[in-house]
Amino acid sequence: MLKHLKQQVYKANQDLKKQGLVLLSWGNASGIDRKKGLVVIKPSGLAYDKMTPEDMVVVDLDGKVVEGKLKPSSDTATHLVLYKSFTEIGGIVHTHSTYATAWAQAGKSIPLIGTTHADNFSGDIPCSEDLLSQQIEGDYEKETGNSIIETFKNNNYEHIPGVIVKNHGPFTWGKDVETAVLNSVVLEELAKMAFFTFTINPKAGINKDLAKKHFERKHGKDAYYGQNE
Amino acid sequence: MLKHLKQQVYKANQDLKKQGLVLLSWGNASGIDRKKGLVVIKPSGLAYDKMTPEDMVVVDLDGKVVEGKLKPSSDTATHLVLYKSFTEIGGIVHTHSTYATAWAQAGKSIPLIGTTHADNFSGDIPCSEDLLSQQIEGDYEKETGNSIIETFKNNNYEHIPGVIVKNHGPFTWGKDVETAVLNSVVLEELAKMAFFTFTINPKAGINKDLAKKHFERKHGKDAYYGQNE
Amino acid sequence: MLKHLKQQVYKANQDLKKQGLVLLSWGNASGIDRKKGLVVIKPSGLAYDKMTPEDMVVVDLDGKVVEGKLKPSSDTATHLVLYKSFTEIGGIVHTHSTYATAWAQAGKSIPLIGTTHADNFSGDIPCSEDLLSQQIEGDYEKETGNSIIETFKNNNYEHIPGVIVKNHGPFTWGKDVETAVLNSVVLEELAKMAFFTFTINPKAGINKDLAKKHFERKHGKDAYYGQNE
Amino acid sequence: MLKHLKQQVYKANQDLKKQGLVLLSWGNASGIDRKKGLVVIKPSGLAYDKMTPEDMVVVDLDGKVVEGKLKPSSDTATHLVLYKSFTEIGGIVHTHSTYATAWAQAGKSIPLIGTTHADNFSGDIPCSEDLLSQQIEGDYEKETGNSIIETFKNNNYEHIPGVIVKNHGPFTWGKDVETAVLNSVVLEELAKMAFFTFTINPKAGINKDLAKKHFERKHGKDAYYGQNE
Repeated sequence: MLKHLKQQVYKANQDLKKQGLVLLSWGNASGIDRKKGLVVIKPSGLAYDKMTPEDMVVVDLDGKVVEGKLKPSSDTATHLVLYKSFTEIGGIVHTHSTYATAWAQAGKSIPLIGTTHADNFSGDIPCSEDLLSQQIEGDYEKETGNSIIETFKNNNYEHIPGVIVKNHGPFTWGKDVETAVLNSVVLEELAKMAFFTFTINPKAGINKDLAKKHFERKHGKDAYYGQNE
Repeated sequence: MLKHLKQQVYKANQDLKKQGLVLLSWGNASGIDRKKGLVVIKPSGLAYDKMTPEDMVVVDLDGKVVEGKLKPSSDTATHLVLYKSFTEIGGIVHTHSTYATAWAQAGKSIPLIGTTHADNFSGDIPCSEDLLSQQIEGDYEKETGNSIIETFKNNNYEHIPGVIVKNHGPFTWGKDVETAVLNSVVLEELAKMAFFTFTINPKAGINKDLAKKHFERKHGKDAYYGQNE
Repeated sequence: MLKHLKQQVYKANQDLKKQGLVLLSWGNASGIDRKKGLVVIKPSGLAYDKMTPEDMVVVDLDGKVVEGKLKPSSDTATHLVLYKSFTEIGGIVHTHSTYATAWAQAGKSIPLIGTTHADNFSGDIPCSEDLLSQQIEGDYEKETGNSIIETFKNNNYEHIPGVIVKNHGPFTWGKDVETAVLNSVVLEELAKMAFFTFTINPKAGINKDLAKKHFERKHGKDAYYGQNE
Repeated sequence: MLKHLKQQVYKANQDLKKQGLVLLSWGNASGIDRKKGLVVIKPSGLAYDKMTPEDMVVVDLDGKVVEGKLKPSSDTATHLVLYKSFTEIGGIVHTHSTYATAWAQAGKSIPLIGTTHADNFSGDIPCSEDLLSQQIEGDYEKETGNSIIETFKNNNYEHIPGVIVKNHGPFTWGKDVETAVLNSVVLEELAKMAFFTFTINPKAGINKDLAKKHFERKHGKDAYYGQNE
């Protein structure tokens, strides 16, 4: 069942490790088959070097395990909320990558301060709000998803394909799980660059037209970056 | 004698090197056989690439060498104090890993500021108090162990499996030496993330219920993280 | 056509990746054949591991593609402005290397504060001025080139073979593309060292005669560093 | 001539590269044959991967080339001053390693703030004073050596086997060139740890008795660290 998607999700999880975004078994990637309404996700707490594509777990959008001997990631409920609300995405990645997590722990959005950022995210990468204690003690992972949806009420999830969850770490997404991985790689680099930038100059700023230009030349309707595909 | 434990302790020492936690011959790992009351520990000042499992030294809980041609680690007395007081642990690791040592040199506990920390340590990773000059000039390595025990008077050593010794560096422990190594890997990453976090926002804070939730979902009696074993 | 130059430019692009200056497909290198008035440049947005020397694109100094099936780098117009004004250079490199980009995002020139810098650049590595919104909305990449030329009105481009473009990142150049790559490697290291230096001591300074001595012993008419060639 | 020493000096230079202390051709190592009064040193500006043991240059203590087709390191005169004054040393290393150079550029000594430092250097690693302009314009490399000697008027060069030259970078030494390399590796790590320490806590301090204890247990007359040799 979903053999190709399992292979993609397996590879995405391995790529997180190769890119240095994941220590031990921290982090998880998933992909969705929109037609079947099924999500393939990493099993919980399994070491990356012991994993096989067959270990990937298949769940429906209510979180019920449809196939797989192992328990799905403990963050599965967060992924499901995102798949239900962000209807155009095909893959999700969660990591505890160092610099992105530091911004999350600091409780601060990662400010758009350069063209590297604007080439990939059209605005600040937002930090979600604190969960209330009753949300934490209730359906915690689902509430984490809800807080991300809340954060994107005033943001375009297709133009800003990632978030940092307060005191936790980054989630990214994309049209497929491979793109979600790339967005995690980029988000970590932006978090790193922003750290150094604001240490050098706490008052750093940018002309918003420059940011818009870079996002548009790569992602706008008249985009001219890259090869025509 | 204790062939299996020697192999484990040897491997743990090599893993410290592979994980980038140890420069030159700095650092040491040990394991205990509780039934026999014997500890296996790295020899003092030996290069990691010249070490064999047979070089590991066996000492009793009074520090007497029971087997081995080499002198045991100069920090052996510190390990022994911990084994005697922390009766549930099976392995201990000491390193001078960069970020953890920086917090130790700064004389500050590593604050719990995110879920990465809470997934592994239930509270701040405490920094021990200064030794008095007479303690330093007396039985120094034993007094270092005593200062760790003192630090844990109000901390649970099973929930917070590590410490940073002031102006020195981290010690971690676990049910076996492999777990102690993992805790050293985690502690260094937490020290690194905390460094960046508080540089970004010196007033960073966290809802303690979020921390509790993460520790409990992985280590509490109703833990649901990871696979059932 | 220009087979040797294509090979050099291809190798330069690969070297940027190997040196850790380039993430994903960010960055580009080019070389010029001054006699023919033709520039060889990396294609736009192509992954480094899928590139071959034959993929390099040949353009004339007006930006017209003379040979090649792929679109040239979206930054081609910036390169062309530099080739036209800086008549002694043979190669150009653009990256988003982490520390240099941080200084660019901070909007600050990289101060000459040590002999490592002075061995390679005779003065501060300047940060260009903000582009006006109409420049951004007009012929943006060409205006970026113009802003670099403007920055060098009072700087010697042969003694300071690089610039950081505000809120964007570094461009370097040299007598050939291989030298331009070396200058990018050096600029990134200088940006890194300067970051740590001014974090340690915001008031750090240098005797300008020491800087001059180092630049002259390597690049002056009585240079005595290196072997006679 | 001096075949064994040439091999040692060659290996030391390669080790600097392997340890990540040297970018491009920056840095140099030398060794002395005290009986013959001859110094073997790296040639100037030569790439590390093109070097052979036979390329090492032999000079006498006046700097005259006794053997070798290549020019010796441009810093040779600095090495010679040190060999003449520090009569117990057998090898010298100079690098531009990142963190040590940052402290040199900041014009600040690296404070002894932990046992990692005290295990290897008995006190602060001193930063030399500014050279006067006439010293720079005179016999510059020799004056650099003199400024190091001046710095050690009140320091013990055997207990503190390294210095950072203001606005330049570190020099280390030892009983042989291999030990000088180790001291460069250690100095860079201490510079890195000190950077993080004082960023966390600008008022960090240490009980001097702890520092003394650690230096003595490894280097004192009753040293008990390491194996008996």
